[in-house]
Amino acid sequence: MSRYDFLILGAGGTGLASAMYAARLGMKTLVLAASHGTELPVGGIITTTDIVENYPGFAKISGFELAKKLEEQAKNYDLIMIKEEKALEVKRIKNYFSVKTEKGSYDSRTILFATGAKWKKLEVPGSDKFERKGISYCALCDAPLFRDKVVAVIGGSDSASKEAVLLASYAKKVYIIARSTFHPEEANLKKIKANKKIEIIEGTNVTGFLGDDVLRSVTLDKVYKGKKQIVLDGVFIAIGHIPLSGLAKEIGVKVNEKEEIVINHQNSETNIPGVYAAGDVTDKGFKQLITGVSDGCTAAYYANEFIKK
Amino acid sequence: MSRYDFLILGAGGTGLASAMYAARLGMKTLVLAASHGTELPVGGIITTTDIVENYPGFAKISGFELAKKLEEQAKNYDLIMIKEEKALEVKRIKNYFSVKTEKGSYDSRTILFATGAKWKKLEVPGSDKFERKGISYCALCDAPLFRDKVVAVIGGSDSASKEAVLLASYAKKVYIIARSTFHPEEANLKKIKANKKIEIIEGTNVTGFLGDDVLRSVTLDKVYKGKKQIVLDGVFIAIGHIPLSGLAKEIGVKVNEKEEIVINHQNSETNIPGVYAAGDVTDKGFKQLITGVSDGCTAAYYANEFIKK
Repeated sequence: MSRYDFLILGAGGTGLASAMYAARLGMKTLVLAASHGTELPVGGIITTTDIVENYPGFAKISGFELAKKLEEQAKNYDLIMIKEEKALEVKRIKNYFSVKTEKGSYDSRTILFATGAKWKKLEVPGSDKFERKGISYCALCDAPLFRDKVVAVIGGSDSASKEAVLLASYAKKVYIIARSTFHPEEANLKKIKANKKIEIIEGTNVTGFLGDDVLRSVTLDKVYKGKKQIVLDGVFIAIGHIPLSGLAKEIGVKVNEKEEIVINHQNSETNIPGVYAAGDVTDKGFKQLITGVSDGCTAAYYANEFIKK
Repeated sequence: MSRYDFLILGAGGTGLASAMYAARLGMKTLVLAASHGTELPVGGIITTTDIVENYPGFAKISGFELAKKLEEQAKNYDLIMIKEEKALEVKRIKNYFSVKTEKGSYDSRTILFATGAKWKKLEVPGSDKFERKGISYCALCDAPLFRDKVVAVIGGSDSASKEAVLLASYAKKVYIIARSTFHPEEANLKKIKANKKIEIIEGTNVTGFLGDDVLRSVTLDKVYKGKKQIVLDGVFIAIGHIPLSGLAKEIGVKVNEKEEIVINHQNSETNIPGVYAAGDVTDKGFKQLITGVSDGCTAAYYANEFIKK
């Protein structure tokens, strides 16, 4: 069994950039690509973003292409091994860690949780029944299915706005249904306002999903244009994420009330020496690809300092 | 006089990326490009790095080209104004800040110190006399002047190693003189070891610069190959940086014993509400282009949150 210096759970932007830095520092590094518990490819959640305009260095690039660049950059280093395996168990053994997957067991002196987050479900009647039968979490993945149809994005964040803009290039009508106020980045708000297909409904909750074999409508807790129901063909849910911190918790890593891993924001350390976390799984207040990537690089540096001691 | 939402002192990678994020958030943003107190162009200190291999997203790019990309990305936004003016004075006035340059005075609700750092001088006899007459701080700027000559890099860090590798493609001989041990990133150490032109002298101090019109030799505090002197044509000093925190201190921003601005590493705030700092001027432990860029973006986000309150 080979012993690694640095084992990264998760191959999103955060994990890939961290691996690159770790290899440059001379660490033998293993990336477990499927450990995030989602169905995403290497590159992670950014691969589901259509156009990225806010990653410094690229004025405009598809999320998929950007992820590919990060992956290829990591693959330039012989010290990095990327395995498409899912971590099932993490154990702390004296001065190292052991991670079990369905295919094997890997030891490492330090580990990084870059496991990210998964999409939060809207827990209302019909939610399970119409999952993948009208309910989606990824406009980039599913928008083409709704050409000339009516769809709604549920959520009020910047992510919701991006989903809506993308959907509007396929659908004939896009509602944005926000529980409180709709509050995207100003740049995205402008795009939304300029787009006549998009209609914003604020201060309104979706209370249920109705349909037959597939989704046909959503019910609301308030009257909108004379009705408490909107007839539509698809719904895209963008109400946030659940951090994938389960495995970390098993070895005693501290999480907060949102299940986010609590880190030292100077060096990405968790409460356990040799264990680091970066990206969407952490309690970072401002979560973006650029901040996850940066914290992943920082974690690699401090993991190397830890080993040298 | 126009009032800005966000005024950035410094147009290095940190300042440019921060401006881009600020504009996306709808903030009217001014970047004072010459406020860093150095002679660097827009893009800052990264423009003096020959090849950048560790900025996530670019497997290999020149520092100058990367800086250009960051600048062009910022210039896509109408809300951003970049002025090549040097900040001379910063004042805190009730609920805003006023910054004076040689050409005008600008008010802003929030400010970001992205002023960076300048190269540290080696304070030994001859240091002032041979500045620009054999003593340089930037291999990328001056290496071509030393084709087939003998040069030395003074310093033991990763930066020193990069200077040496670049110089070796011009000079016939490159000494690295490190006060204690030479400790570059593993990837750069390999390049150094593979290069027969480069010779490492550890545990040795340079005690003086000698010459006539130009630098001719350096003296050492220890015997090396039978002598306490090395005859050479040029010296590149890479012994660290001095954070440019002077203006920040004038308005009461807290700095540490290294003159670095003390920030909250979660949100890039200083001790003064509405005042942020990011990049090489801060007390960040791991300073890289990627971490400065990320913290600059984070500062923009929290400055916007501050204004909204």
